Amino acid sequence: MDATNHTSTAGPVSPRTAHFDQPLQLANGTLLPAYDLVYETYGSLNAEKTNAVLVCHALNASHHVAGFYADDPQNVGWWDNMIGPGKPLDTRRFFVVGVNNLGGCFGSTGPQSINPATGEIWGASFPVVTVEDWVSSQARLADHLGIRSFAAVMGGSLGAMQALSWTIQYPGRIAHAVVIACAPNLSAQNIAFNEVARQAIISDPDFYDGDYNRHDTRPTRGLRVARMIGHITYLSDDEMASKFGRQLRRDKLNYNFGVEFEIESYLRHQANKFSDYFDANTYLRITRALDYFDPAAPCGGNLSLALEPASAGFLVVSFTTDWRFSPERSHEIVKALLDNRRNVTYAEIDAPHGHDAFLLEDPRYHRLVAAYFDRIAQEIGV
Amino acid sequence: MDATNHTSTAGPVSPRTAHFDQPLQLANGTLLPAYDLVYETYGSLNAEKTNAVLVCHALNASHHVAGFYADDPQNVGWWDNMIGPGKPLDTRRFFVVGVNNLGGCFGSTGPQSINPATGEIWGASFPVVTVEDWVSSQARLADHLGIRSFAAVMGGSLGAMQALSWTIQYPGRIAHAVVIACAPNLSAQNIAFNEVARQAIISDPDFYDGDYNRHDTRPTRGLRVARMIGHITYLSDDEMASKFGRQLRRDKLNYNFGVEFEIESYLRHQANKFSDYFDANTYLRITRALDYFDPAAPCGGNLSLALEPASAGFLVVSFTTDWRFSPERSHEIVKALLDNRRNVTYAEIDAPHGHDAFLLEDPRYHRLVAAYFDRIAQEIGV
Repeated sequence: MDATNHTSTAGPVSPRTAHFDQPLQLANGTLLPAYDLVYETYGSLNAEKTNAVLVCHALNASHHVAGFYADDPQNVGWWDNMIGPGKPLDTRRFFVVGVNNLGGCFGSTGPQSINPATGEIWGASFPVVTVEDWVSSQARLADHLGIRSFAAVMGGSLGAMQALSWTIQYPGRIAHAVVIACAPNLSAQNIAFNEVARQAIISDPDFYDGDYNRHDTRPTRGLRVARMIGHITYLSDDEMASKFGRQLRRDKLNYNFGVEFEIESYLRHQANKFSDYFDANTYLRITRALDYFDPAAPCGGNLSLALEPASAGFLVVSFTTDWRFSPERSHEIVKALLDNRRNVTYAEIDAPHGHDAFLLEDPRYHRLVAAYFDRIAQEIGV
Repeated sequence: MDATNHTSTAGPVSPRTAHFDQPLQLANGTLLPAYDLVYETYGSLNAEKTNAVLVCHALNASHHVAGFYADDPQNVGWWDNMIGPGKPLDTRRFFVVGVNNLGGCFGSTGPQSINPATGEIWGASFPVVTVEDWVSSQARLADHLGIRSFAAVMGGSLGAMQALSWTIQYPGRIAHAVVIACAPNLSAQNIAFNEVARQAIISDPDFYDGDYNRHDTRPTRGLRVARMIGHITYLSDDEMASKFGRQLRRDKLNYNFGVEFEIESYLRHQANKFSDYFDANTYLRITRALDYFDPAAPCGGNLSLALEPASAGFLVVSFTTDWRFSPERSHEIVKALLDNRRNVTYAEIDAPHGHDAFLLEDPRYHRLVAAYFDRIAQEIGV
């Protein structure tokens, strides 16, 4: 790592754990008796405690949003290009919080944690949690950190759904929502892809109805297939075409079911990596949280009505080639906000990378986010 | 079945088997020593033998293209809305041939057949066949039926790829190609979906490297997941939205991984049906035939050059919401044909049904095909 990089990294960082003893009421009707949230912070909370930004993660990410670990410098945060000193979300001005969600597999209480009531791993018995549950638990983390109100809550994809839910659940505790590559709910096709991924996991004989730990195994076959499906939906058709096209692995065909095309090699590699570290019960729960998210549902499907309580300012960003959550889905959010005469900045970035574009370094995209955070910084005087 | 339906059905029909003793040279370099093709015919071959139309099937279909079976009247051919007396492909004028492809699982020689060399089921040792192999075997069937030249070869999706290949492999034996919902090759994304489906099958512990018959089992779990993936790509996002949307199966959420949404129920149902009857080794081979199809490859990717030998007239049809083989992919075919100054009729049907639209009864689509076959009928005087 050279000097230039050093000046723009938020690391080295260390995760911390907040323990919560007060039971959390979950959307499924049960109480989570006690729980831990693992989180990281970057930058400093100002004396007025007005400069905190919560960054929510999507499907397979974690609290490790930016920086690196001193003992593992290659392990760089998943949004490190966005967050750090001098970056669009500038940690010289803002105090940024990353948190691993409940039900996750990176340290926060989830299926791999011990259920205090039984002394055994939760496994299949860990409750199905929702976006709203995550936001409730994040509000408690804010209390724990002494943050009454976030200058912004920010996320992409499922992370953006959390930002959106913050504006409805805690309108008084969020000044701005940065909602990137989002949708107000999943389409039938989105749910269908999630369902296939879940079926791949559930039908893996090593899944054992979610209690694979007891059988000393893991449903890696199912996880591999699930990850492959996900991966296809994260990339645009065009991006796949330009990255891989019909390029062969060798110079001639083998006429078998091994790797013939580069795209196959790529998918298998991604699948193997993922199935090594990700927990199947977490995958099931996160995809379900996506399926269930539908803030308009309690308002008879009227998103404008659902967003009436929201008082935050909004930055909504979509990407032209995102076919998972297309720009049209962001338009629904923008329209509902305008119906309520809220402050909305909307941008559609002409990017070739599909849904994954929100994670990538695109100058126009990053300039836009930087400009929005400049405005927030001016508002709060940091 | 009432009188009106009776007048428009091509049935009752019976499949027949043609046996071929002459070895078939396959693209993978091996010889298939002998093989059977199961086929059906509808209508009558005229004395001049000029009115024959070959209909090629796509991924999961068969030789049973139209009509019904006397002992199983519910078993109606997969393209019965298109083919029959008075239908777009009118069996009062044309002699229509449907054939199950080599490597299939509906009677033609395939992985479930006995390998005469060993006396055992081919299973995993059945060769990987290509679109070109299928067309070669179909040409032999034409010889068997005394058909020197087809008035048309017609298909949708993978079936259309066979029609396209006919125009290159046997330009003198095909007067017209009806190429519906086709692409000149698979995109990286198309291959990726096939690869995930194959991985679901191959990683099913009941697959046993393709020799599941010996273990008296079938990889139904993998087949289920494969079918679900396929099904998502056959329907358009819009069609799924209007058919299922976010409709719940029950009036409230259960917060588990059972069926919550109607789309989940639909996918599981389709998957179960399919895994009951389809052979996994066939599925692998058919998806590979799709992956490999690329007539432009031997011409350095130049499709115009590849289609130079083609002398047939062409009807090319695409559907606006088909995201598996989008209209742009049909444009590539049309452009290459126009580069060669071939006769092409092209239509883009504004249909909401996605790739599956080619199987459905849409008045504009059917009128178009009817008009094209009227023209062929006039040319040959039937």
